[in-house]
Amino acid sequence: MSKVPHKLSHYDAAGQAHMVDVAAKPATRREATASAFVELSEAVLAALPANPKGNPLEVARFAGIQAAKQTSALIPMCHPLALSFIDVQATVVVGGVRIEATAATVAGTGVEMEAMTAASIAALTVYDMTKALDKGIRIREIVLVRKSGGKSGDYRRNGGNHNHLDPDQREGHAKP
Amino acid sequence: MSKVPHKLSHYDAAGQAHMVDVAAKPATRREATASAFVELSEAVLAALPANPKGNPLEVARFAGIQAAKQTSALIPMCHPLALSFIDVQATVVVGGVRIEATAATVAGTGVEMEAMTAASIAALTVYDMTKALDKGIRIREIVLVRKSGGKSGDYRRNGGNHNHLDPDQREGHAKP
Amino acid sequence: MSKVPHKLSHYDAAGQAHMVDVAAKPATRREATASAFVELSEAVLAALPANPKGNPLEVARFAGIQAAKQTSALIPMCHPLALSFIDVQATVVVGGVRIEATAATVAGTGVEMEAMTAASIAALTVYDMTKALDKGIRIREIVLVRKSGGKSGDYRRNGGNHNHLDPDQREGHAKP
Amino acid sequence: MSKVPHKLSHYDAAGQAHMVDVAAKPATRREATASAFVELSEAVLAALPANPKGNPLEVARFAGIQAAKQTSALIPMCHPLALSFIDVQATVVVGGVRIEATAATVAGTGVEMEAMTAASIAALTVYDMTKALDKGIRIREIVLVRKSGGKSGDYRRNGGNHNHLDPDQREGHAKP
Amino acid sequence: MSKVPHKLSHYDAAGQAHMVDVAAKPATRREATASAFVELSEAVLAALPANPKGNPLEVARFAGIQAAKQTSALIPMCHPLALSFIDVQATVVVGGVRIEATAATVAGTGVEMEAMTAASIAALTVYDMTKALDKGIRIREIVLVRKSGGKSGDYRRNGGNHNHLDPDQREGHAKP
Amino acid sequence: MSKVPHKLSHYDAAGQAHMVDVAAKPATRREATASAFVELSEAVLAALPANPKGNPLEVARFAGIQAAKQTSALIPMCHPLALSFIDVQATVVVGGVRIEATAATVAGTGVEMEAMTAASIAALTVYDMTKALDKGIRIREIVLVRKSGGKSGDYRRNGGNHNHLDPDQREGHAKP
Repeated sequence: MSKVPHKLSHYDAAGQAHMVDVAAKPATRREATASAFVELSEAVLAALPANPKGNPLEVARFAGIQAAKQTSALIPMCHPLALSFIDVQATVVVGGVRIEATAATVAGTGVEMEAMTAASIAALTVYDMTKALDKGIRIREIVLVRKSGGKSGDYRRNGGNHNHLDPDQREGHAKP
Repeated sequence: MSKVPHKLSHYDAAGQAHMVDVAAKPATRREATASAFVELSEAVLAALPANPKGNPLEVARFAGIQAAKQTSALIPMCHPLALSFIDVQATVVVGGVRIEATAATVAGTGVEMEAMTAASIAALTVYDMTKALDKGIRIREIVLVRKSGGKSGDYRRNGGNHNHLDPDQREGHAKP
Repeated sequence: MSKVPHKLSHYDAAGQAHMVDVAAKPATRREATASAFVELSEAVLAALPANPKGNPLEVARFAGIQAAKQTSALIPMCHPLALSFIDVQATVVVGGVRIEATAATVAGTGVEMEAMTAASIAALTVYDMTKALDKGIRIREIVLVRKSGGKSGDYRRNGGNHNHLDPDQREGHAKP
Repeated sequence: MSKVPHKLSHYDAAGQAHMVDVAAKPATRREATASAFVELSEAVLAALPANPKGNPLEVARFAGIQAAKQTSALIPMCHPLALSFIDVQATVVVGGVRIEATAATVAGTGVEMEAMTAASIAALTVYDMTKALDKGIRIREIVLVRKSGGKSGDYRRNGGNHNHLDPDQREGHAKP
Repeated sequence: MSKVPHKLSHYDAAGQAHMVDVAAKPATRREATASAFVELSEAVLAALPANPKGNPLEVARFAGIQAAKQTSALIPMCHPLALSFIDVQATVVVGGVRIEATAATVAGTGVEMEAMTAASIAALTVYDMTKALDKGIRIREIVLVRKSGGKSGDYRRNGGNHNHLDPDQREGHAKP
Repeated sequence: MSKVPHKLSHYDAAGQAHMVDVAAKPATRREATASAFVELSEAVLAALPANPKGNPLEVARFAGIQAAKQTSALIPMCHPLALSFIDVQATVVVGGVRIEATAATVAGTGVEMEAMTAASIAALTVYDMTKALDKGIRIREIVLVRKSGGKSGDYRRNGGNHNHLDPDQREGHAKP
């Protein structure tokens, strides 16, 4: 398929992991949204709204926002960049909590990893705040939802180029 | 079920999210192992060993080890603690890369979140280094594998108390 | 006054700022509480509860908890230590928001600066989330409220050894 | 008053705390100065210059400069940005130490919080280095002094829109 | 010599250490390369390639890349900036391991310290992974190799303006 | 030589880099001192004391102290630990500035890397503050000076087990 690069990212001609030089890339608006799903039992889900003042989903949102800013410190080949926007939403859906994280910047490189990192840390925070109720909680499906800006073109999940995924399963948890 | 606590962790009597005081808990050896799975297509998996000098799985391992040390900075209600051990393994299996992260300490609180965080960041790093080949890559199944030490007793996944999981699906990707 | 040390903390015999060696000090339970006050106009205070879903005071609480863990990275002569407990409360009172932050550890050194740092960053977060309404907002009165553990004995504000403070003014903002 | 926004910053239409997207805002020079005041007794002030080689005010200056760079990691809704300038001054005045911190950038968002954070951490450092002499030390008055750049216009404290402050008290400690 | 500034960097007219304001400087491409040399005995060098799967030099490379991103947090007067590129190479040469680190940005200030910091931390990591074999290991010669961009002109080591160095010794360790 | 381990540190049986588990090691007092030397020309050395109020060596000392606390975040296989003491001295000697950094803890692992990291970052800070005067400045000789505590016994440089070093050169710069 012509759109698929022939090699891994972050590797130079000699095969060593490295950071791509983005200085020559035009600084355009880049935006990315990632999602994560924390599978929770009925009992745990029922306990979530029982908190009169606090809210585990709010803690998760802030943790995700703060983590997005630490992405380049966490992911070795990521470039440090000035994010213009970060948002994290955490919603109770059938079977668990769905996290959706969006990051944006005006830069020569994308913010896919920032969105993925925010979603992951928000999901881990939901896990942390519910784990006393059930150690078997799973974080499932951390994926890129959409991406815009940059030379590789826009991307939207379910656009057809990832047919190794089972659509039924992938969509199952998103139904409110 | 008598073993299940009746409330979320990290919540006080007034329902506000807070950090549990662990000063009175005995400092015993605590250990936890978590795993994550990065689902990769055949084409991406085939590209992984093609690097003559570098190795995306090594980058992922180091990223996971370094992230474990940042757990309390990332997860709001986690206690800072002196980890005595961190290990992250990344292995090519059928259908993708399996990450397994272990953390240990001698402290009054467990290291479950350290293991979960290490596994998650290692998985994100594998994603980062393969995403140019396929934007549809999924990180799946970040779970606690086992846990020992602490008053809540030892835990081992598949011990029977998480029957809302589909064993076939859960095990499928772990077969080497 | 015999209880007052004759020199600044963190200075050696040669007058150079340094970190005190706490290795020989016994590891006992240490606890400290600090408070801060963010003075807000009636208009700003009225806007605070108007948020249907979010809550600036919750954001401030999490920011304070997370900041406490970064104390030794922020305050040069502070020792890194494993906090066993951090709590931050943010309450609307007459004339503004009162922050109260508590930190605890079992260590050879106190957690006064952890409590002070948590209170300060929580106050700065309240400021950040209200500053669009009034640039003249003041953060006032970041003080140690009480302290226990350690060889210098327990301390409780208003205990009489800080008579250079005007009690009327100091108490004024704390009345609910 | 027409210049006063009708809602808190960092809140979206649904009332959730979020980070404002600054990508569309023009990158102009932004500058902000904040001040803090650490109230010290005569005895403590007398001890400050007694250090032959070290200087608590220098330690405070560096701590403030370093903290300004960590602002977005500390204040949840702050954008990470590339500061072009940070300066912190710490001066002995009547009744204590006055801190003044200035930050500047060329960006789509202001540096008010960077200046406020630098001033706060510098003040906490002065507190840390004098607390052995007097536990009753107060950090008073962390405020924005002036701000320029950005669409909301320039701001200078004492400009009239914060008449709930007592000018006598506010100015009292600044007299050298 | 007319090209040599008459005062230290980072000092203002009053002699206080401060950060230079780079807002007015044009954002051009800046690049810098630094090197470090870790002197190792024959026995230690022989042990390096004996690792079937891991590689201390790869660990050092990643540590150097990650450290470059933390430069402004480590070096007080350094500006935070968005690096467009970081690369670290670690090579076994006669007598030890040679590290070469390159950083690049498009900004109003240079990346000399980022390259120097990356080289230093990579060298410390090589030391850490070999120290069990020989506590007498030396890190020698952390130097700027070349620098381009910026008003002070390009620089290349051995260009003649540092004649207090012994060329024989300086070159000795670079021979492969 | 019987005291020399036969393999690199941080490698497991399979040859993968890993962190050693220190949980079983007794928590004893560990102390380590490292030194670094920044070679400066006469002209640069002459400029150092010319600063009426500030002092590059003080900035370097604080940078070194703060860096010691970040050691485990910088060096991949280092354990996070609670330092009981850090001290950094920076002294003008013949030919440059000598840095000496000491770290101590009560733990199951040593603080060699904390001392080495503190010395390195302090040296980089001296470089940063003098580089405008001479780009050819060299950081030379970052070495462990002494180490006590731990099962591998005490170590003191010049004790005889590093005879591949030229003593004349090594001592040269330490003469005041």
